[in-house]
Amino acid sequence: MFRRIYFDNAATTPVHPDVVEAMMPYLTEKFGNASSIHNFGQETRAAVDRARQQVADLIAASPNEITFTSGGTEANNLAIRGLVESIRRKSPQQPLHIICTTIEHPAVSNVFEDLESIGIEATYVPVSPDGLVDVADVTKAIRPETALVSIMMANNEIGTIQPVAEIGRHIRQLRESGHKIWFHTDAVQAAGKISVDVNEIACDLLSLSAHKINAPKGIGCLYTRRGVRLHPQNLGGRQERGRRGGTEPVHLAVAFGKAAEIAKLEINDTHDHLLALRTKFEDGIFETVSGTTRNGDAEKRLPGISNISFTGIEGEGLLINLDMQGIAVSTGSACSSGSLEPSPIIRALGRDDESARGAIRFSFGRFNTIQEVDHALEIVPEAIETLRRMSPRYQKQHV
Amino acid sequence: MFRRIYFDNAATTPVHPDVVEAMMPYLTEKFGNASSIHNFGQETRAAVDRARQQVADLIAASPNEITFTSGGTEANNLAIRGLVESIRRKSPQQPLHIICTTIEHPAVSNVFEDLESIGIEATYVPVSPDGLVDVADVTKAIRPETALVSIMMANNEIGTIQPVAEIGRHIRQLRESGHKIWFHTDAVQAAGKISVDVNEIACDLLSLSAHKINAPKGIGCLYTRRGVRLHPQNLGGRQERGRRGGTEPVHLAVAFGKAAEIAKLEINDTHDHLLALRTKFEDGIFETVSGTTRNGDAEKRLPGISNISFTGIEGEGLLINLDMQGIAVSTGSACSSGSLEPSPIIRALGRDDESARGAIRFSFGRFNTIQEVDHALEIVPEAIETLRRMSPRYQKQHV
Repeated sequence: MFRRIYFDNAATTPVHPDVVEAMMPYLTEKFGNASSIHNFGQETRAAVDRARQQVADLIAASPNEITFTSGGTEANNLAIRGLVESIRRKSPQQPLHIICTTIEHPAVSNVFEDLESIGIEATYVPVSPDGLVDVADVTKAIRPETALVSIMMANNEIGTIQPVAEIGRHIRQLRESGHKIWFHTDAVQAAGKISVDVNEIACDLLSLSAHKINAPKGIGCLYTRRGVRLHPQNLGGRQERGRRGGTEPVHLAVAFGKAAEIAKLEINDTHDHLLALRTKFEDGIFETVSGTTRNGDAEKRLPGISNISFTGIEGEGLLINLDMQGIAVSTGSACSSGSLEPSPIIRALGRDDESARGAIRFSFGRFNTIQEVDHALEIVPEAIETLRRMSPRYQKQHV
Repeated sequence: MFRRIYFDNAATTPVHPDVVEAMMPYLTEKFGNASSIHNFGQETRAAVDRARQQVADLIAASPNEITFTSGGTEANNLAIRGLVESIRRKSPQQPLHIICTTIEHPAVSNVFEDLESIGIEATYVPVSPDGLVDVADVTKAIRPETALVSIMMANNEIGTIQPVAEIGRHIRQLRESGHKIWFHTDAVQAAGKISVDVNEIACDLLSLSAHKINAPKGIGCLYTRRGVRLHPQNLGGRQERGRRGGTEPVHLAVAFGKAAEIAKLEINDTHDHLLALRTKFEDGIFETVSGTTRNGDAEKRLPGISNISFTGIEGEGLLINLDMQGIAVSTGSACSSGSLEPSPIIRALGRDDESARGAIRFSFGRFNTIQEVDHALEIVPEAIETLRRMSPRYQKQHV
């Protein structure tokens, strides 16, 4: 039998069987609209409430600070567009400045660029060659008119973990001294792998996505600290305390809740398991393959992500070669696929186009095994050698 | 055994077993991100493409005119906010006027009110006491600066079917003579019950929701005629041809596609079945219960919706009484529940507060049976009599 190995867990994850089981009743007999008053509605309302509590518990929030969205992208859009729109409507003439880094997910960076086109000033704080942002660079970028800082907790391509707690505390201090400034963090990749605690981070807004923690696609949430005002981006019914209209997707909420519960309960085991997989994988690769560069800091990094550039290799060529041998990996993020440009994240580390084009992300998940890593270590080095043999340019430089 | 009867299919519907079956593989082994290049991604990409075709087929559209959204609310928001934002960004000073009716769903009317608060002028065209809009009233409301007309195909509370094809043709003629005006229709309630054909309607934008046609909650779509420009409301990855960022919710798309396929195939049977249920129900009620008023035109109405006001009855009291006897119905829409105001839709028909408060919606679905209607006809008249006996005001007026 052809063996398929999935090392693309940063793109999406398989649904946990317990999550499927938890959600199934809400795809069959418990189908009521959670906003309906009758019994069919009451049983789904109770399920959504329970799920909201489970998701809140994962990040040490309170349930009424959780707004369910259709995913991480909508959560990021609601946070940034919602905050900016709320301020703009109150004071249309107020100059506005917003800050993020050069390695945000497109669901943040594209919103920033879009807001620039309507006259909002934006600063993109650069990162070190290891993909880390310097707290001092962020604080220096803050101006009196800065209303929002959005810095991802962990990067989706290289896994680097940013000093969000330090940044959050600094921003909170500024606000306590009267500066109207808020802090958003995209914790989509971090959740379930490292501790995500809204009080430790001192953030005002935080985005999560269910399908990155073994729940189905189509749901996420935005944590909004009590008192933070957002202009809703989906107006309609009074669902989600008026923050987001639309019939509550009950089965998705239940699934997200269950996945959050499991993620919280098993976070240490998951962390250690992913770290063991990655360590074995990277050790094996760096031992047997020459001309490799790890992208992203060695230590301050999510346990499950390994991003490596191979000299003389086109990432997409390697991806396709590995795919034919049953191993799924990625170049850049799935959200950027279709783009012919080299990964802007790797470019932001100061690498040249060739290095950026040669970057491959291996991302491990809770259901991967050491045996799969062993199998991959038999295949990946050989694939790289094959591809290098076929590259005249690599041959000229290295033979 | 306590028998539960669900007569609230306008709020949401049970998922069709064939739909559950079609989607299950995408909640288990086929979990890839549809934007991933590898095999796991290819199999889900193919599934999303197939689903898009199925949904397009339901409304005689082409697949690249379908943008999946998180539901009908997001579709309506994307249509209206997206169009207005697109125009505003191009010509910020251009005066803008938009038109809808007084009985739109909150996902339209609340967006209209929100846009009014940023200086866009809106006209809410009134409806007749039977809940129908007059085409002449709509055409008279159009001004040179009118950019959008949004009129629902069928109402969610009373089921009335609006003359959208006539309105659509008029607007198309205007546009052909140089007026930059577009037509949106919310077809969330109409789909699957009556024919919805984007060419017959001559609309530019049309909203659908999956969970109203026996698919799960959490997905819908916006039809956008080729050439119509919308400013995206969820920026991020390049999904949905750049119209809407966010990882494609594969299992939901597959479910929506399958439900659309079934809806199309069985539309005549569904229509006739719902009509038979409602006819039997209304005949039974109107024969045995005095002091009733049907809300909404008798003929130009969806087959499955019966909205009745009962003199001397508080809708919510009847709802709770029936719920205790296992019959689920609603007052107004689930999206408005939590509101203590009488239904604004019934008020818009020119009824007084008492009549609006006494309105109950019975909405039938494909899985309801004649036996359920028979059972309800044993219970509902008695419940009304009981409630009326308890109402001193009703007793004073009628004894």
